[in-house]
Amino acid sequence: MAIVLGPNQYGKAEVRVVAVDRSGPRHDLVDLNVSTALRGDFTAAHTAGDNAHVLTTDAQKNTVFAFARDGVGSPEAFGLRLARHLAGSYDWITGARVAVESHGWERIAVGGQPHGHAFRRPGGEVRTAVVTVDGADAHVLAGLSDLVVLKTTGSEFWGFPRDRYTTLAETRDRVLATAVTARWRYTAADLDWDGLFAGVRTVLLETFAATHSLALQQTLYAMGEAVLQRFPDVAEVRMSMPNRHHFLQDLSAYGLSNTPGEDDTLVYHADDRPYGLIEGTVLRDDVPAAEVAWLGTPGFC
Amino acid sequence: MAIVLGPNQYGKAEVRVVAVDRSGPRHDLVDLNVSTALRGDFTAAHTAGDNAHVLTTDAQKNTVFAFARDGVGSPEAFGLRLARHLAGSYDWITGARVAVESHGWERIAVGGQPHGHAFRRPGGEVRTAVVTVDGADAHVLAGLSDLVVLKTTGSEFWGFPRDRYTTLAETRDRVLATAVTARWRYTAADLDWDGLFAGVRTVLLETFAATHSLALQQTLYAMGEAVLQRFPDVAEVRMSMPNRHHFLQDLSAYGLSNTPGEDDTLVYHADDRPYGLIEGTVLRDDVPAAEVAWLGTPGFC
Amino acid sequence: MAIVLGPNQYGKAEVRVVAVDRSGPRHDLVDLNVSTALRGDFTAAHTAGDNAHVLTTDAQKNTVFAFARDGVGSPEAFGLRLARHLAGSYDWITGARVAVESHGWERIAVGGQPHGHAFRRPGGEVRTAVVTVDGADAHVLAGLSDLVVLKTTGSEFWGFPRDRYTTLAETRDRVLATAVTARWRYTAADLDWDGLFAGVRTVLLETFAATHSLALQQTLYAMGEAVLQRFPDVAEVRMSMPNRHHFLQDLSAYGLSNTPGEDDTLVYHADDRPYGLIEGTVLRDDVPAAEVAWLGTPGFC
Amino acid sequence: MAIVLGPNQYGKAEVRVVAVDRSGPRHDLVDLNVSTALRGDFTAAHTAGDNAHVLTTDAQKNTVFAFARDGVGSPEAFGLRLARHLAGSYDWITGARVAVESHGWERIAVGGQPHGHAFRRPGGEVRTAVVTVDGADAHVLAGLSDLVVLKTTGSEFWGFPRDRYTTLAETRDRVLATAVTARWRYTAADLDWDGLFAGVRTVLLETFAATHSLALQQTLYAMGEAVLQRFPDVAEVRMSMPNRHHFLQDLSAYGLSNTPGEDDTLVYHADDRPYGLIEGTVLRDDVPAAEVAWLGTPGFC
Repeated sequence: MAIVLGPNQYGKAEVRVVAVDRSGPRHDLVDLNVSTALRGDFTAAHTAGDNAHVLTTDAQKNTVFAFARDGVGSPEAFGLRLARHLAGSYDWITGARVAVESHGWERIAVGGQPHGHAFRRPGGEVRTAVVTVDGADAHVLAGLSDLVVLKTTGSEFWGFPRDRYTTLAETRDRVLATAVTARWRYTAADLDWDGLFAGVRTVLLETFAATHSLALQQTLYAMGEAVLQRFPDVAEVRMSMPNRHHFLQDLSAYGLSNTPGEDDTLVYHADDRPYGLIEGTVLRDDVPAAEVAWLGTPGFC
Repeated sequence: MAIVLGPNQYGKAEVRVVAVDRSGPRHDLVDLNVSTALRGDFTAAHTAGDNAHVLTTDAQKNTVFAFARDGVGSPEAFGLRLARHLAGSYDWITGARVAVESHGWERIAVGGQPHGHAFRRPGGEVRTAVVTVDGADAHVLAGLSDLVVLKTTGSEFWGFPRDRYTTLAETRDRVLATAVTARWRYTAADLDWDGLFAGVRTVLLETFAATHSLALQQTLYAMGEAVLQRFPDVAEVRMSMPNRHHFLQDLSAYGLSNTPGEDDTLVYHADDRPYGLIEGTVLRDDVPAAEVAWLGTPGFC
Repeated sequence: MAIVLGPNQYGKAEVRVVAVDRSGPRHDLVDLNVSTALRGDFTAAHTAGDNAHVLTTDAQKNTVFAFARDGVGSPEAFGLRLARHLAGSYDWITGARVAVESHGWERIAVGGQPHGHAFRRPGGEVRTAVVTVDGADAHVLAGLSDLVVLKTTGSEFWGFPRDRYTTLAETRDRVLATAVTARWRYTAADLDWDGLFAGVRTVLLETFAATHSLALQQTLYAMGEAVLQRFPDVAEVRMSMPNRHHFLQDLSAYGLSNTPGEDDTLVYHADDRPYGLIEGTVLRDDVPAAEVAWLGTPGFC
Repeated sequence: MAIVLGPNQYGKAEVRVVAVDRSGPRHDLVDLNVSTALRGDFTAAHTAGDNAHVLTTDAQKNTVFAFARDGVGSPEAFGLRLARHLAGSYDWITGARVAVESHGWERIAVGGQPHGHAFRRPGGEVRTAVVTVDGADAHVLAGLSDLVVLKTTGSEFWGFPRDRYTTLAETRDRVLATAVTARWRYTAADLDWDGLFAGVRTVLLETFAATHSLALQQTLYAMGEAVLQRFPDVAEVRMSMPNRHHFLQDLSAYGLSNTPGEDDTLVYHADDRPYGLIEGTVLRDDVPAAEVAWLGTPGFC
């Protein structure tokens, strides 16, 4: 028996780079949070403190800023440029993972006209990209997180088994709310990243809205299936959807009804914890798996 | 000398109430975080554990839900209904403070049409209202928090004194970014709350965008002044504006320029801490002060 | 009527300074989060963007680091040095507020012996100090936040009034849990800060534990009273204590009892929101008030 | 080509259960955050909204509370009881994952004596356990997160390669700080969980302190290696260690030195972002891998 080093990676996390394109009369703005990680032969650093193979995380950070100087483009394209450069830096580096969070900004309207250099950041929802270069291969995951959605009706939940600890009542009309985290893997590395992202996001939203839901699992699957049906460049979709419970408040003690189908106004309490958590993958059965594309990505993996 | 009880209040914080109006073919949704506090004679509870005067915080919570059952309306109107009821519950209760955070939701578009019962919560920015009933008086503060805005140019900073510890270079072209928290006090308690809120918010945004800034203090004052000029029902505006520093990244070590006025793309690092923090009040000098309206409200007070 | 500038202040928030004393064989470590704010005549900056009076927040930050180079000492002493320096910088500056959060570290034990230069940061509880210099006066508030405490018994709650919305059952045996934020004002500016802090903290903890509680208000008052009784240098104590509800879980549906006084093991669910919030002041009636000492300090003010 | 359901799981996340053992004169307290997840055949729920196989997350929550009623014991033992019960509920359920966070409380000392029923929660560091039942197998990961440690010296960093973007200076004396997240897998499911946890934690701390560090990777490996050397029941250790940078503040502009080896007091600024992130595995090469034990566990996986 020996004690050995297993899988490992290192890099610089959460480099907050903002790049402004001032080439035209109207400025453009990208606002990214970039994390890099290198894979390869770093055994000596671990076992002997020999850093001859350790491209510093400080240099990785500098690389992010230097590359942004040439213009950023989409998160996926920026991630690919960075990951390929980092993975090709030295022969002992065999791969790189670059994760990008992109925060959207919208122009402030002044007198009804979008301003040329003043912006508002809506917050909340984040666009994500994870690029993994593994030897000669490059994998791209696009995604989004904290897409918070809710339906005030069109959601049921019944027909479940009842064990000793099941006390939940069945319902034919409940609020369904979640904060979608979705990541989807592309089958190529030279696509129209912004167009595809916008398209997938729209399909996710429309499918959430349009699906009459009998289970949050059903909604999750329908969302992933719709993405795969519409976008042949997507191989698989992984989603994590907390069930943000909105329970009808019992008002009967003060003589008030609070019943779907009877009352015009319904009152719910929104709970923080605990919450249901539904995680699942929808995929094409004829596309090879690529687990390395998901390595190190939080969520269902 | 004696040891005595000083100012005190108690209540239920962060009641998460969601109310759905299903009276028409399209549902409407309000999503609130409500905190109540009572003021009055609660000395015996403190000094003797005698709860005869303590309307329970649980009852306060129940009241929030019960009142929501009748429809919520604007945060200010809901706060007024609650605060007046609570303050009038018992003769030993002399006042109440109700703080409301309102989270906006927008309809999901399906095929270009806003859906009737499916919504997305943008996150980030929050609308706030604080209602204080003090005997026969009612005070209303409207506000917003986490309104994150940024200008890519149109901001300078120079002409400051230089003490021993001043090393900052002057600049004629910097990024200006902040997360606005603003609260404004109305002079009446029966106004068009939603219309006023929308109007004030627009003025804050437009003034931030349109002001050529020589100091964040100047921007803050201009925003408050514009609100007071346009809305006679507003007596004062208090603002807290962190200076979210975006510093030009020095790329010269790799032979790259990064200079406003010279380069098409500029690269900044966004810093978390420390940050400048500018806090100030803009007010009409002919309106009586009302400190009780601000009591217990975090921020500049 | 005119629109004018009201109360205002500005400074650098959250300067994260860590100072290490390596003068002896064992290193000592202080870990602070320092926020400064200046008060005075900054009208021209607000109304005209004239920064001639604006000692930059960058210089304030530099001052924090430079002063730390001489050794930090207690948070109160460090705050006093900084606030006096800042308030005395220029004649248009009339006051300064310096808030300090201090994070404790303890030595790691190796083979049972405290290590000379390796430390662990327990996290959670924070020691705070707020120093306000106002002209010739200096005020010092010491404090702590996030002191999380709980009693598994020795807490009752009954005898409260029952209005239409009161449904809470009375109890003679409940869990009482809170996260104490306390701030106390000293009557002098040259005290044994570390000794007093330790003493007050001990009294707060011991009084929480030893008080048989009929109301969280009673516990709060007892804690403040005990501090004032024991420490003549303390003029007043302000506390904010959320009631972190731990409710008995109803297990009767599965045939399980869960009753204080009957069962050996009791099971509670800990709720996040909503929570009761008790805020109060305990003070000596013969000490002059000093509201300026509290200006800008979040909490009950 | 077909679109199909891939790996999936669902459960109740973050059940906050507090159990009090009042059988003796001194109460004991466990404070857990429990998340459950089921694996098996849930296809019909996803594709048809048929919930016949869906043991509700509400029932899973109820099970957590009901099982706590019998006494909790260690997080690992509680997780095993729950996971085995859940995985054995119905024949279509093939596995369960139960993750437990355990928050420690210590007795408040009153007059130097530990109190019988009053406690303080230190905060920060969390003990974790993840139990995975997969058919007839049970896997146990123990762990901890947010173990924040720092060395004021005994850390160097030099000898790294210098590419175009490397500007970092070499150093022979730096501050080394991190927040350790570690998880280790046991080779059996009937061990002395509390004793082993305490032992591993001590070894992690002592090794961090005692290792003269040439790289954070070296420290990480040394910590993992020491655990494996001392505890034969541990098969592998996975660690994630952010490099919480403490940079020497440059004070030269004000004529102050700040140099290790020269000055008694050194002043550092603690940065939030970006940060280095070192992730790695140390394992025995003769123990079979068990990837299912890590499935769904955030971190390096």
